[in-house]
Amino acid sequence: PDWILVEEDGVEKLQRAFPFGNFVDALAFSNRIGELAEEEGHHPALLTEYGKTTVTWWTHKIHGLHRNDFICAAKTDQIFQGNETD
Amino acid sequence: PDWILVEEDGVEKLQRAFPFGNFVDALAFSNRIGELAEEEGHHPALLTEYGKTTVTWWTHKIHGLHRNDFICAAKTDQIFQGNETD
Repeated sequence: PDWILVEEDGVEKLQRAFPFGNFVDALAFSNRIGELAEEEGHHPALLTEYGKTTVTWWTHKIHGLHRNDFICAAKTDQIFQGNETD
Repeated sequence: PDWILVEEDGVEKLQRAFPFGNFVDALAFSNRIGELAEEEGHHPALLTEYGKTTVTWWTHKIHGLHRNDFICAAKTDQIFQGNETD
């Protein structure tokens, strides 16, 4: 599954679910994305569940998608793939 | 706001949103609830956003609520209040 476009309350967002073997690994990934969010000064919604973290990016100020959201989505993928380029 | 009963895909769940001043504090709370989840062997959904963590408890096996969900909800409140009793 790749990123999909979802609409919540009239706001377009980028969303992708990342699979994990358990809850701890899903939460660890949420923490890595939390670090990315702090670095970027841009914050997603992170839904952590048993075996899955769902990441949703959108730009609060413009109630929709900005170029930065696509960049953050790509960086999220890189972190999932474990080849972060700092 | 207190715990509310929500229905998702025909499954009743207990849900409460906990307010925080930023994303980091919301994520730190999610991690504390993650520790609780591991201790209990029972895992909620944790939605971490800027300024808010929404915790949802339900019992996967029975597709609904078990006594244990209410216990975990109460323990979640204790952690939020900072007076965890181990």
